[in-house]
Amino acid sequence: MLGTMQHWPLLCSKVIDHAATQHPHRKIVSRSCEGPIHETNYGELRGRALKVAQRLVRDGIGLGDRCATLAWNTWRHLEVWYGLLGIGAVYHTVNPRLFPDQIVWIVNDAEDRVLFVDLTFVPLVEALIARMPAIEKVVVLTDAAHMPATTIPNAVAYEDWIAEVDGDFHWLEFDENTAAGMCYTSGTTGNPKGVIYSHRSNVLHAWMAATPDMMGLGAADVVMPVVPMFHANCWSLAFTAPLTGAGLVMPGPKLDGASIHELTERFGVTFSAAVPTVWLMLLQHLEGTGSKLGTLRRVVIGGSACPRAITEKFLKNYGVEVRHAWGMTEMSPLGSICTPKPETRPADDEAWLDLQVKQGVPPFGVEMKITDDENRPLPHDGKAFGRLKVRGPAVAASYFHGVGMEHFDSEQWFDTGDVATIDPHGYMQITDRAKDVIKSGGEWISSIDLENLAVGHPDVAEAAVIGVAHPKWDERPLLIIVPKKDREPTREAILDFMAGKIAKWWMPDDVVVVPEIPHTATGKIQKTALRDRFRDYRLPTA
Amino acid sequence: MLGTMQHWPLLCSKVIDHAATQHPHRKIVSRSCEGPIHETNYGELRGRALKVAQRLVRDGIGLGDRCATLAWNTWRHLEVWYGLLGIGAVYHTVNPRLFPDQIVWIVNDAEDRVLFVDLTFVPLVEALIARMPAIEKVVVLTDAAHMPATTIPNAVAYEDWIAEVDGDFHWLEFDENTAAGMCYTSGTTGNPKGVIYSHRSNVLHAWMAATPDMMGLGAADVVMPVVPMFHANCWSLAFTAPLTGAGLVMPGPKLDGASIHELTERFGVTFSAAVPTVWLMLLQHLEGTGSKLGTLRRVVIGGSACPRAITEKFLKNYGVEVRHAWGMTEMSPLGSICTPKPETRPADDEAWLDLQVKQGVPPFGVEMKITDDENRPLPHDGKAFGRLKVRGPAVAASYFHGVGMEHFDSEQWFDTGDVATIDPHGYMQITDRAKDVIKSGGEWISSIDLENLAVGHPDVAEAAVIGVAHPKWDERPLLIIVPKKDREPTREAILDFMAGKIAKWWMPDDVVVVPEIPHTATGKIQKTALRDRFRDYRLPTA
Ligand SMILES: Nc1ncnc2c1ncn2[C@@H]1O[C@H](COP(=O)(O)O)[C@@H](O)[C@H]1O
Repeated sequence: MLGTMQHWPLLCSKVIDHAATQHPHRKIVSRSCEGPIHETNYGELRGRALKVAQRLVRDGIGLGDRCATLAWNTWRHLEVWYGLLGIGAVYHTVNPRLFPDQIVWIVNDAEDRVLFVDLTFVPLVEALIARMPAIEKVVVLTDAAHMPATTIPNAVAYEDWIAEVDGDFHWLEFDENTAAGMCYTSGTTGNPKGVIYSHRSNVLHAWMAATPDMMGLGAADVVMPVVPMFHANCWSLAFTAPLTGAGLVMPGPKLDGASIHELTERFGVTFSAAVPTVWLMLLQHLEGTGSKLGTLRRVVIGGSACPRAITEKFLKNYGVEVRHAWGMTEMSPLGSICTPKPETRPADDEAWLDLQVKQGVPPFGVEMKITDDENRPLPHDGKAFGRLKVRGPAVAASYFHGVGMEHFDSEQWFDTGDVATIDPHGYMQITDRAKDVIKSGGEWISSIDLENLAVGHPDVAEAAVIGVAHPKWDERPLLIIVPKKDREPTREAILDFMAGKIAKWWMPDDVVVVPEIPHTATGKIQKTALRDRFRDYRLPTA
Repeated sequence: MLGTMQHWPLLCSKVIDHAATQHPHRKIVSRSCEGPIHETNYGELRGRALKVAQRLVRDGIGLGDRCATLAWNTWRHLEVWYGLLGIGAVYHTVNPRLFPDQIVWIVNDAEDRVLFVDLTFVPLVEALIARMPAIEKVVVLTDAAHMPATTIPNAVAYEDWIAEVDGDFHWLEFDENTAAGMCYTSGTTGNPKGVIYSHRSNVLHAWMAATPDMMGLGAADVVMPVVPMFHANCWSLAFTAPLTGAGLVMPGPKLDGASIHELTERFGVTFSAAVPTVWLMLLQHLEGTGSKLGTLRRVVIGGSACPRAITEKFLKNYGVEVRHAWGMTEMSPLGSICTPKPETRPADDEAWLDLQVKQGVPPFGVEMKITDDENRPLPHDGKAFGRLKVRGPAVAASYFHGVGMEHFDSEQWFDTGDVATIDPHGYMQITDRAKDVIKSGGEWISSIDLENLAVGHPDVAEAAVIGVAHPKWDERPLLIIVPKKDREPTREAILDFMAGKIAKWWMPDDVVVVPEIPHTATGKIQKTALRDRFRDYRLPTA
């Protein structure tokens, strides 16, 4: 027997319809690529997204067609998403920080037919367009006045392009499992792999993210997604904000501390989300200028482990609540957020800050377990660490073109490639990437734990730990640090600082000071590069 | 093209699994029908629900089988819900306050096979069981020690019944559109009509309800659903609490002010939900005893219009936030909740209290419009009032057995039978039931507006307004009031109080003082009974 409830497919177009009906005048403020601040609202945004949809149909784009974006967070990028979504075409966000060869590879793999590009990236596209034969048209996200002279064939200014239609259009209806968006994982080995979000997964994920213990968003919030729309589905914010009626402040191309701070103060941002590096830049700016944060209440920090020092500064110096989050492109991306439960509600700030280095607890809709290499479940004692596996309606079941099936088991559990502990209260902590964990004498040492500890030293700006070959122990940890400006930390000072805070056998066998540590396109430490560089490093203990 | 996301059906069993995994020790406190307070938690509750499921299967109950409950809010009632849900059987909550003939009618209409009954209602079942031939077994929700001698054939004590299995059982998997629960609308005319919730609609509805601007629940909350589980799907709380990890306090059979207050204080209730009458009783108790509310932060009030006086007392005397809600059995039931938007954020308490008499704004997942009798949309100006129509994934598309299809149009809009205005900010206000609105000289007068105004008078405990035949105007309003204890309000005093606060032509033509006003089984004023009683009433103006 079936329920007698309505068939109301979970389509992303309904999210923008809701925002435009219930919150038509809610502001969407963007820093444009042309420079000035631009203001619009959900009502107008929906109207222009309808034009995008109508114009795409005229260009022959329809259900299942992929269209790439190489763009910052602005209102136009949002319009393009909703325009594509409204006809069942697929937004494919391309990370402009990828190597050019990778960009070409994924655009060709996705067979993108239209490319929407910000002014910033026009030179990049000029250099690459000849190698991306499936692209039929390049829409430059600007108006005629700012349209550059370009060698790109079939390039058109966005405002001219949508001006050719009147917006008298209705969203199309289709199955909620239809492809909505596409994002490739950066994948340090092998080719990038495409994840295809569905309308259903995007909508369910936005509901999950909205709940109080996750992001906790409502109509009174002003949300600034510093996390780019090309980074893992914008951490859901392009959906969660309109779903909850929150306002949006889109930072465009300027992600430095001063620019972020300016927007926050000027437009009353209450909530933001980004990777730790962005927050480091903001905090440095605030400290350097002696500035304060007026309206900001909460920041979600994820993408890589958030050091205690960041959480502490936000809390103590600025009264801002940090929510440490973990997720993956394959998970839409939200996997867990660190918020208190009654039984873990901390006695004091320090105890809470200690707990917040954990990545936290999953929402309803994410199942989680840790196993050993033989898929046997490990205890939730906060000590045993093993492969983190997840399941849920916003978790990938496969990749585009069916590649990478070894990451999924017969019961649909997705092996995240992360190594984690889960404590008796259910708080998960990432201890490493499976491939970064250091195997010393048959036991595992968490590179992330060591890094978190090392950056606590006042002279250390950034730290990375890799395993280096050792004749006796197989691998031993090497600590690589970037000093703070005008500081000269010594090997001994750092090791002294760490001693006693971790098990003796976890202590790095050596410390190397470098001017800079390489990062991936999404801002994570590029350990493969470090491992290459220090492949033949001879540890003093070896 | 489809997304590559997991097929993870939205089944209610996953909600209790989540609670038992993430919040195993979170308390569920109940006032038992036997008397004492009982404590359990999500981990144990799930374990016992598995036994219910396993035991049901042994009794031959399976997918699609309806099983009735005649029970208060307790842990056992919850176990029965989740046990039934876990095998795809259907919980059918029967409102024990219905007329016995109605109970027989709906149990037979649903063809319930098992009946779960609280001690309180054993005599009722004894009187009716012979007329409900489809019932194969009656499970009395108690243990052997409290099992009464009964004439009910095939009666068994719940604890004995589940003790026959070991709980080594797994939830069954099935389509998310499978029937989950069933509830009949009280329907003042014609036979009651059955609404069948699906697993999908229950889960989606719980997500909607959890969001910050709706109920806004998290793991730190202790939720006391005073609204019975037999009233419109328990307003989602049987799902929203475990989904968010909130604790539960179940009031069992005692809903008087003193009992509710005792539980609130003793178990740290932070959130509760009930109809206005319950809150009136609580407020009277608090005033009578000079008591306070220690932990309560928020109450959701719905089911009928919440008078400003209740909201005001909660806010000013007890610091409790009222969220005025509107919904229907057919909507799972949440339709709207009154929470502020930035543009309506009130200048002061008084302005906010004024706004809170409105039923508020729908969540994402509820579409809403008002139309005239010809289905033409009416303006959202806060003045025009018309038929309120809704759509969404947790709104009924039909009733059981296909009856009542006249309530649904070809585009799936469900005509709620309520009459409402929608203001420019999207706030909906119920002005009447379509059949209660007073038609005076071709214009409509809202009976609810007049009632809300009249109960603001210090001597008035309850008020009802009905239309009475008038030779010139067709119908004119008659105000019927119940005085507060030891007060004797006069016709003139009441009319004086109302004068100037509403349009002159809305003023009641007469006032009648009665000792009591009849209520329906769900606590609403029974206007049909009043209309019958005052059918031949002669207005002084006639
Ligand atoms: N907050 C409210 N204000 C006015 N009427 C309400 C409210 N909540 C529910 N109702 C009425 O209750 C009806 C639903 O009854 P039921 O299906 O028994 O829950 C609605 O159609 C309304 O007429």
